Amino acid sequence: MARLVLKFGGTSVADLDRIRVVAAHVKREVDAGNEVAVVVSAMAGTTNQLVDWCKGAAKLHDAREYDSVVSAGEQITSGLLAITLSDMGVPARSWLGWQIPLRTSGVHGAARIETIETEGLEQAFAEGRVAVVAGFQGLGENNRIATLGRGGSDTSAVALAAALKADRCDIYTDVDGVYTTDPRITPRARKLAKITYEEMLEMASQGAKVLQTRSVGMAMTHQVRVLVRSSFADPDDPQLVAATNGTADLPGTLVCDEEEIMEQELVTGIAYSRDEAKITLVDVEDKPGVSAAIFGPLADAGINVDMIVQNVSEDGSMTDLTFTVSNAELDKARSVIEGAKDEIGYQNLISDGDVSKISVIGVGMRSHTGVAQKMFRALADRGINIHVISTSEIKVSVLIASEYTELAVRALHTAYGLDGEAA
Amino acid sequence: MARLVLKFGGTSVADLDRIRVVAAHVKREVDAGNEVAVVVSAMAGTTNQLVDWCKGAAKLHDAREYDSVVSAGEQITSGLLAITLSDMGVPARSWLGWQIPLRTSGVHGAARIETIETEGLEQAFAEGRVAVVAGFQGLGENNRIATLGRGGSDTSAVALAAALKADRCDIYTDVDGVYTTDPRITPRARKLAKITYEEMLEMASQGAKVLQTRSVGMAMTHQVRVLVRSSFADPDDPQLVAATNGTADLPGTLVCDEEEIMEQELVTGIAYSRDEAKITLVDVEDKPGVSAAIFGPLADAGINVDMIVQNVSEDGSMTDLTFTVSNAELDKARSVIEGAKDEIGYQNLISDGDVSKISVIGVGMRSHTGVAQKMFRALADRGINIHVISTSEIKVSVLIASEYTELAVRALHTAYGLDGEAA
Repeated sequence: MARLVLKFGGTSVADLDRIRVVAAHVKREVDAGNEVAVVVSAMAGTTNQLVDWCKGAAKLHDAREYDSVVSAGEQITSGLLAITLSDMGVPARSWLGWQIPLRTSGVHGAARIETIETEGLEQAFAEGRVAVVAGFQGLGENNRIATLGRGGSDTSAVALAAALKADRCDIYTDVDGVYTTDPRITPRARKLAKITYEEMLEMASQGAKVLQTRSVGMAMTHQVRVLVRSSFADPDDPQLVAATNGTADLPGTLVCDEEEIMEQELVTGIAYSRDEAKITLVDVEDKPGVSAAIFGPLADAGINVDMIVQNVSEDGSMTDLTFTVSNAELDKARSVIEGAKDEIGYQNLISDGDVSKISVIGVGMRSHTGVAQKMFRALADRGINIHVISTSEIKVSVLIASEYTELAVRALHTAYGLDGEAA
Repeated sequence: MARLVLKFGGTSVADLDRIRVVAAHVKREVDAGNEVAVVVSAMAGTTNQLVDWCKGAAKLHDAREYDSVVSAGEQITSGLLAITLSDMGVPARSWLGWQIPLRTSGVHGAARIETIETEGLEQAFAEGRVAVVAGFQGLGENNRIATLGRGGSDTSAVALAAALKADRCDIYTDVDGVYTTDPRITPRARKLAKITYEEMLEMASQGAKVLQTRSVGMAMTHQVRVLVRSSFADPDDPQLVAATNGTADLPGTLVCDEEEIMEQELVTGIAYSRDEAKITLVDVEDKPGVSAAIFGPLADAGINVDMIVQNVSEDGSMTDLTFTVSNAELDKARSVIEGAKDEIGYQNLISDGDVSKISVIGVGMRSHTGVAQKMFRALADRGINIHVISTSEIKVSVLIASEYTELAVRALHTAYGLDGEAA
């Protein structure tokens, strides 16, 4: 017997038929003797409708009222799933954030989880009852409902798994796992059976939109094993039933600790992001405090700076400085920098929104050299020019012209030996 | 300064435009220096959608889950109205049933209000804040959400007005008041400025669907003055503003204690109901216990019996017994009676679903005679045959063939001098 937290997103609970499929997945786990808590999102489209109403009611709205309105979406699905489960002979009850309670702090609309009372849920397990938990919501200050912000249901699920000391947190989603790279770019992309938290964190933040970065970070901190799997699979598929009973391999991709992965590949995956923009300041005076003069105002404006490169000039008095921001924030970043021109003191500002970031990721590179070298060589062989390079312990990222994105991803996928059979 | 509870139903909050009109009504009261709590229903259509989902998920559903799902409707409107009010410069916050808390007991889906904590709401008033309360919902046992059943928002509003010792409870609805009879039947129907609780109770249960019977009963018990008024009136109409400031008569109809009505008419109104059916048992043995044998099984089956008439036969051994039930329950009532035929012992069962009940209502008839006599005369003059008669302290009801409904209502309206100018 295992204790599991299952999470289903908005497309998985989009209507009553889909909710019945979700219930069948839950029933399969219960029939195998597991204790199960389920976290659900709002029906696809519902949250957007509720957000639109709030925005339509007033441009500036009290975040506490927004939270009360928007949290109704998960309230509805949690009740409907509990009804459906009971109808299938699986005892269940719904739990709203305030009923558990799942206590939060911080800003409404983007609250952080502080504590989760497990007494009521443990009691439910003891009575053989499935706990259906409304995701995305908790209890804030003054007895108000607080929401966790976008992607909050993933976070709810992982936090719940941590609090309940669950054996695994299954995130049912519209893809069947994490791939070595985006399968839309190369049919030779392979599904990974396992990936470490660190790698998943890089994959997520590099644009593989399978799991919310925040929930992966929380899973890593609390060592919650997360299984990314498909909510569109047939719940009664014999292979799936066998995996549930432990007589076949788990489906999907398990996000886990490095120690649980026997043989680690040098490189696990190739990620890319098109939402990039480059700003170069030409002839910046190379004096103390100039970095603060540039990045202080950007931080104040809430603009996230990613890569930074500085070229020292020959005589050491002038420098060119290049950094990247998300494409969506390019205009805002430009106007912030232009507004601070006198304090910074630069000759010229050049920007380019037509760039992509390609990253090679793998915990194996901690103990191996030559990974970056192989990347530069593979790109050079295709005539792809590198604008900016940045590295961390487990990844190497480069900025290139957008038009080369697919070519670069495919070249690197092959170069690191990640190609599988063409799907 | 007065303390007011305002209640707006589903059509009054059907979309953001309608919610803005509601907010303008609230603002008018606040600008006049009043302390205001507002009770809102779900947007028109939302509750039906949520109920349909619950029914679609399972034929038999846990009422606690049903309540959790369905209460989301009022949760949404309470937040949206609070946002709209704040946007108009009127400080406001939303209150869900569990946040007040408004404690309930009894069956989920049809819970009864037990207590209402007023501390939080009083605090809100002290801070000059409007309390926007989600109607129809409260906190049940085990920290679960409970709903009050259909029409529950009227009950929420009256109960809240009683707990807050409000000066008045304004029910904004899609009619502009209570009329001497249904204006669709006669254009000469007049709007009543005031009506007593007792009369309103009869008018409501007799088919004038302005206020829920349950909320009128509660208003009478707790002496809450209820004003029935139109939610479609222009909130900034000078006449309405004057009424708010106490320099003009109140709009709508005030439901209040008899003492507050200076000059009482003999008859206040004519009500009718087409949802009636008559069952006659021919040749019932006239022995002790026969009534129990008939009405016991009907009560057990949850069937509400209204009028009962018994004719004694000449020799006193046999009797005919006639009673009425709602038309919707006729088939059920027939099969209950037929199933108990042996215990009851009757010759024949005759039923008629094509009947209407017409009632003449007025507290004035307590101290005057001849009211019934005038009714029988007016109907006889039009050749309308009376099947059954029943009377109470303040009303006389007769059962007639349905086809005469409008004719009877118009004749009685004229006979009791209720006709006004044709609208």
